[in-house]
Amino acid sequence: MVKVIVDVVLKDEILDPQGDAISRALPRMGFSFKTTNVRQGKSFILTLDHSPSASELKEIESAAATLLSNPVIETFTIRVED
Amino acid sequence: MVKVIVDVVLKDEILDPQGDAISRALPRMGFSFKTTNVRQGKSFILTLDHSPSASELKEIESAAATLLSNPVIETFTIRVED
Repeated sequence: MVKVIVDVVLKDEILDPQGDAISRALPRMGFSFKTTNVRQGKSFILTLDHSPSASELKEIESAAATLLSNPVIETFTIRVED
Repeated sequence: MVKVIVDVVLKDEILDPQGDAISRALPRMGFSFKTTNVRQGKSFILTLDHSPSASELKEIESAAATLLSNPVIETFTIRVED
């Protein structure tokens, strides 16, 4: 089984209140590590029974750009895990 | 800047209606690649201004297990990106 993972994150210029809330919650919960920024994203894990071909990866890229993300406010990256 | 990314996914035994909906939508939208399974997850991107020490990574792991995921239904993995 091969996993093709589409990671979707908000563009840098888009406000992320949920990430900000986590950022503020961490010290309040007693964690001492310092973050300069926290962002929340989504991931989609597509399991295939074979390694994706170049044309399949192209299709997955197109699905990521249309079905899985909103290109106005989000960007995505695709990684393949064997 | 170093990114510590916490990927949270539903446990395999937990139903994922959103993943199923995506799975059904793909062929309907004309995509021909075959998936055996689609799952949706969340990711948290913590940006640090330095490489995390072992003790910081331990703290991040503890934050992932308490604030960022629900251990009853979710599992998480942590990866560090320079």
